[in-house]
Amino acid sequence: MDAEEFRRRGKEMIDYVAEYLENVEQRPVYPDLEPGYLRSLIPSEAPLEPESYEDIMKDMERVIMPGITHWHSPYFFAYFPAASSYPAMLADMLSTAIGCIGFSWAASPACTELETVMLDWLGKMLQLPESFIAGTDGQGGGVIQGTASEATLMSLLAARCKAVRRVQTYTSDKSEVEIFSQLVAYTSEQAHSSVERAALIGGVMIRKVPTDSNYAVRGDSLKKMVEEDKAAGLIPFYVCATLGTTPSCAFDQITELGPICNGENMWMHIDAAYAGSAFICPEFRPLLNGIEGHSTVGLNGFWYLKIFFCLSTPVNRVKKRTDIIGAFKMDPLYLKHENQESGLVTDYRHWQIPLGRRFRSLKLWFVFRMYGLQGLQAHIRKGSNELNQNLLKKITNSREIHLVPCQLSGRFVLRFVICARTTESRHIQQAWQHITQLTFELLQEPNH
Amino acid sequence: MDAEEFRRRGKEMIDYVAEYLENVEQRPVYPDLEPGYLRSLIPSEAPLEPESYEDIMKDMERVIMPGITHWHSPYFFAYFPAASSYPAMLADMLSTAIGCIGFSWAASPACTELETVMLDWLGKMLQLPESFIAGTDGQGGGVIQGTASEATLMSLLAARCKAVRRVQTYTSDKSEVEIFSQLVAYTSEQAHSSVERAALIGGVMIRKVPTDSNYAVRGDSLKKMVEEDKAAGLIPFYVCATLGTTPSCAFDQITELGPICNGENMWMHIDAAYAGSAFICPEFRPLLNGIEGHSTVGLNGFWYLKIFFCLSTPVNRVKKRTDIIGAFKMDPLYLKHENQESGLVTDYRHWQIPLGRRFRSLKLWFVFRMYGLQGLQAHIRKGSNELNQNLLKKITNSREIHLVPCQLSGRFVLRFVICARTTESRHIQQAWQHITQLTFELLQEPNH
Repeated sequence: MDAEEFRRRGKEMIDYVAEYLENVEQRPVYPDLEPGYLRSLIPSEAPLEPESYEDIMKDMERVIMPGITHWHSPYFFAYFPAASSYPAMLADMLSTAIGCIGFSWAASPACTELETVMLDWLGKMLQLPESFIAGTDGQGGGVIQGTASEATLMSLLAARCKAVRRVQTYTSDKSEVEIFSQLVAYTSEQAHSSVERAALIGGVMIRKVPTDSNYAVRGDSLKKMVEEDKAAGLIPFYVCATLGTTPSCAFDQITELGPICNGENMWMHIDAAYAGSAFICPEFRPLLNGIEGHSTVGLNGFWYLKIFFCLSTPVNRVKKRTDIIGAFKMDPLYLKHENQESGLVTDYRHWQIPLGRRFRSLKLWFVFRMYGLQGLQAHIRKGSNELNQNLLKKITNSREIHLVPCQLSGRFVLRFVICARTTESRHIQQAWQHITQLTFELLQEPNH
Repeated sequence: MDAEEFRRRGKEMIDYVAEYLENVEQRPVYPDLEPGYLRSLIPSEAPLEPESYEDIMKDMERVIMPGITHWHSPYFFAYFPAASSYPAMLADMLSTAIGCIGFSWAASPACTELETVMLDWLGKMLQLPESFIAGTDGQGGGVIQGTASEATLMSLLAARCKAVRRVQTYTSDKSEVEIFSQLVAYTSEQAHSSVERAALIGGVMIRKVPTDSNYAVRGDSLKKMVEEDKAAGLIPFYVCATLGTTPSCAFDQITELGPICNGENMWMHIDAAYAGSAFICPEFRPLLNGIEGHSTVGLNGFWYLKIFFCLSTPVNRVKKRTDIIGAFKMDPLYLKHENQESGLVTDYRHWQIPLGRRFRSLKLWFVFRMYGLQGLQAHIRKGSNELNQNLLKKITNSREIHLVPCQLSGRFVLRFVICARTTESRHIQQAWQHITQLTFELLQEPNH
């Protein structure tokens, strides 16, 4: 395939992609087939001679599409949002074409520098404390990890390294692995499975902290476990708190956990993969209060802020970059470049598990600019004050129930109070059905 | 941006990408700028309101391109080939549009099943032993890892887990971490830095085996180290051999190393990231002899087989899938599906560090089919028998030097022998210059 054919096929592919996404609603969201369906549909060996492009594209509908679980179907409610956006897709095409591998600054300066600045933009959108921002001479900063699991693993490994160094300052005769055997990490019993897996990979113990009736970890429960473990001769070193747990989107009480971590020299990592993007709205930002005391925050762009995906942008953000870089720094001669000791450059390979990395910050750049902060906030809110006002008008005009609005943190809120002595459960259910029905009608109107 | 605008912008982007790749030779291959150049060229915060697409694309040339190290420039000879191809780029667009996260079979059956079959295709192209092929009821099989570093890390972690279980069968009082402290891994002093890093992450010792004059690890050297370590009470458990080292493309003698690994119960991983793709040519395949005895092979599609990139397809291939799955299997309720205990499906999340994964096998499918095995082989050989014949004809017609051809393993080879008693070093140098010059002229001719 030469450049001319690529121009033609590429444009066909753009149409195919647009058509797929516009009509994905028509396809069955979950495939109806038996395991092993695909093998019998294609040859058992690669062809010796080239096949035609038309044949391959025909097989997309014959072989591939029947086996797809359509994550972008409006009927897809499983797992988590793996959302996508047109600007992100365009940026992805660019990133593929440039095809640089940004493991060091010299391997493509723009790839590294855009990432640093984009994560500063994101940090400011989230109103993070100054210490988490790279700036021109900051000690903090962020890195785009491949997945949320890697963000958690990397923070645990950095914490393990820091703990070993600390313990060795007062017991210099202990080997690294001896210290490993005493280290203990903590996370919620509601935490994502990748946290436990990170501890398995890192070869350290992990304990699951019980939650309260809101499925949140509280300071008391953590404190109790830490005391027990210290009494048993163990060394608590790491806490992974969750803001938005996978089962129920519960929020651990980080304002209570933070002081305990600081007092015990434990690294605090916040897994905000599920709910973190929502903190760009001021009304949700208080859920992130307490972050000041912590070492890293893992944020995952693609769960909630749906425009991010393919994006797949889990972020590790640290307050002190040397903490994370120090864990696994390696400088073979073939990766050295003249600027690396200048202190001016970031070599992101020290911040992550893999060596190689794509030019992923291009997607952040396209998405941030094409939507603007207000556009991104509107996407998370999914409904304007105006929409709520119109709903109230509809409810009032229908004259079946009566309620009044209020204003909370700048939002127009419909206020529902059980007032009458005679109100029973069935009245409330009828009222809810009525509100739901009117909302549905409102959303069907052409301007929505 | 709606679907209509995406169709328009997407087609413009296809033209931009084609234009970039066709003319990348004109751009300076390595940027001339100071660290920190980018920050002053863009605002310090994300825009509040959306910007226009035109402005963003204008900034590609103003902000990004001056800071790119052009990996696809014909003047790029650093690091390794991060090659690309038009079919792979088209497949990548599809993968982005479908946007499924294939961590389990149910999360998108086609994503998992195509990967299994494509890695069987690749296994057959490489003439791997049957035990490495998944087939319909095989115990072996392959997985596409995100990067070569992850392929190595995953094999080391699986080996660590297997070693612990083995040791615990005869010393059940030892804790996992106690055993870690006795484990020792081996690799060449010439091995890639990611091998040492994998050991650091896994918390195990690693020793570097000295190489012979060809920079290859030999059986004797490994044997000696293993004996010493056993005498010191350590447990040798893992060897990472390299086929194609980063500095000089040296090949460890795996036929010698294999029996030692088998005798000592050590896991043998082969890092063939640099040279592995070349084994699809029968004339290079003997370098892979000895693979039968080993546990995993790491292959990296994108180094040599250049059409693979963005592809970025490092592969871990195992003989016994339970060895690798067993290391970190986790089954939280939200990832369970009805077919998972049937034994018929593969859930690739157990084979890798991250949970999430893209639909990467689409790129293999497009590339294998659009080029065919012969096309891929021709790409690696980079020169046909015909070309060599034409070169010899040119040399003969020029009448400055004289040589004759021979046939080796089906290849037309130009044979150069020092025959005359009077030949001196300067004659050989002149001859080489002459051959080089004629080769250069030949490659400039329009049909090349």
